[in-house]
Amino acid sequence: MATIPSFHVTRSERRIGWDRTAAPALVVPSGAELTFDVIDSSGGQLTDTSTLQDVANIDFAQVDPFHGPVFVEGAHPGDILHVDLLEFMPKGYGWTANMPGFGLLADEFPEPWFHVWELGPKRAQFVKGISVPIEPFCGVIGVARDEPGNLDVIPPRRTGGNMDSKQLRAGTTLYLPVEVEGALFGLGDTHAAQGDGEVCGNAIEAPMDVTLRLSVRRDFTLETPEYEFVRPLERASAAEAGYYVTTGIGPDLLEATRDAIRHMIDKLERSHGLDRYEAYALCSTAVDLKISEVVDQPNWVVAAFLPRDLFA
Amino acid sequence: MATIPSFHVTRSERRIGWDRTAAPALVVPSGAELTFDVIDSSGGQLTDTSTLQDVANIDFAQVDPFHGPVFVEGAHPGDILHVDLLEFMPKGYGWTANMPGFGLLADEFPEPWFHVWELGPKRAQFVKGISVPIEPFCGVIGVARDEPGNLDVIPPRRTGGNMDSKQLRAGTTLYLPVEVEGALFGLGDTHAAQGDGEVCGNAIEAPMDVTLRLSVRRDFTLETPEYEFVRPLERASAAEAGYYVTTGIGPDLLEATRDAIRHMIDKLERSHGLDRYEAYALCSTAVDLKISEVVDQPNWVVAAFLPRDLFA
Repeated sequence: MATIPSFHVTRSERRIGWDRTAAPALVVPSGAELTFDVIDSSGGQLTDTSTLQDVANIDFAQVDPFHGPVFVEGAHPGDILHVDLLEFMPKGYGWTANMPGFGLLADEFPEPWFHVWELGPKRAQFVKGISVPIEPFCGVIGVARDEPGNLDVIPPRRTGGNMDSKQLRAGTTLYLPVEVEGALFGLGDTHAAQGDGEVCGNAIEAPMDVTLRLSVRRDFTLETPEYEFVRPLERASAAEAGYYVTTGIGPDLLEATRDAIRHMIDKLERSHGLDRYEAYALCSTAVDLKISEVVDQPNWVVAAFLPRDLFA
Repeated sequence: MATIPSFHVTRSERRIGWDRTAAPALVVPSGAELTFDVIDSSGGQLTDTSTLQDVANIDFAQVDPFHGPVFVEGAHPGDILHVDLLEFMPKGYGWTANMPGFGLLADEFPEPWFHVWELGPKRAQFVKGISVPIEPFCGVIGVARDEPGNLDVIPPRRTGGNMDSKQLRAGTTLYLPVEVEGALFGLGDTHAAQGDGEVCGNAIEAPMDVTLRLSVRRDFTLETPEYEFVRPLERASAAEAGYYVTTGIGPDLLEATRDAIRHMIDKLERSHGLDRYEAYALCSTAVDLKISEVVDQPNWVVAAFLPRDLFA
């Protein structure tokens, strides 16, 4: 970073739940640059020394804390909070878990599963011959809703939150619709890498330092978050190595997504020697999802893209 | 092409509907190379001289013919038909229509709309300052189902058909699960370019010559089509120019997709001066769709990606 950030949000300044009446952790002017020392999505329950038993005992009430809220001076309902995502610095390790009862194929993966990733400068090792490129971002980023109560942090909403959108990386500009005075911005759930969909329910969950700039705009309006970036959508090594693609075809997009992932798990078993839990976790951390067709009634097509650069 | 194709399927050798008892247009050995002279998806009802009245009068019973069926010797139920897609050569023009009653936002776009595209070597002009890169593929490609009757050509099925999957371009290898003797392969609905989803119901619909190779494999099994390619997923000009992204967030993936497209139509109106029908058509021909998150109950996130290289 060329400039020293002006504001800092600590690891302990975090909360569970979006509440329009929450006291701000920090008040900043529009244009402020901030760093956040972000705890992992388990709120510190899982670390690089955790066991399967720790996964089985996870307390969901502590999951997905966000840091903040940050009150941005001059942000009023109807404005846009313009977020320049500047830097994501992971801290050496990450974890991926299958938590029973959670995930796209929860019924088919009833057992706890856990993997600790050592994060190198460019890649995280999975099993022999397979590694995942590091592309850090934050899963949770948003502002408070103008609704009463302490809103659950798991579902994303029109003001953002747990969007788990992997393009929210350094260099992306995110626009959030402000609903309350000061916006009450928060972020958390940092991921060292994730596939579209985050299908097993976890990415490479990794504590990290995040730097960003918050500004208020009112030259346009939004109904839900929008974002933009000037860079490729795919990394260079994936563009060179290409993709293997599976499909799900049917009248329900969610079930078609499940089928595309089931078929990708089959592919990873038959061609790459993974067991089903490993394959499910690799889909969640590295396989992307597209909607190929959504007009040819009654059947839609969802496609899952396996980038070949995972394989050494 | 280095070699002269051995087999040819003419413009008139086409049918409406998948029928396991249909007489083959052609019988070929495994490994044969074929060219197809593909009529447009309207079956010739719309051309570069058509009018809005022609769109309003479209006979849906003639839509989406496919060329074939081709009987591949040695293909038995349970085998895989391996399709090497070799070349797509458009014939100078294409069209995009909004056909009342058809499309993702049919209720919001009740009027017929029609645009003829002149296809240059690399791009097709839309309106002043906006053009779409040409990336030709076939929307319909598949084999017969082992089901009685003449099956409607509009919905894709586990044996493929109207998949409208834009990655099925030259250089892609497609695997189709064979259900009947000889596979009974067919293709049609060629597109000069399409966005994921084909949201208005039409891409840049364009007659073209298609060359491919058909081979029989039985070293693995499939439930639905799969494909692979060694090339970038995104074109170089889009990778350089970047993207603007809108979202749809909610408990139903289809409605979230509609919202993401509605928000992209708003963006194209407010920032690029298009009217709503033009914006809807540009989404259908050039905007891509991802499922960003599908585990944070009860709300999922669908994202629509506008590549900035459309703008001169």
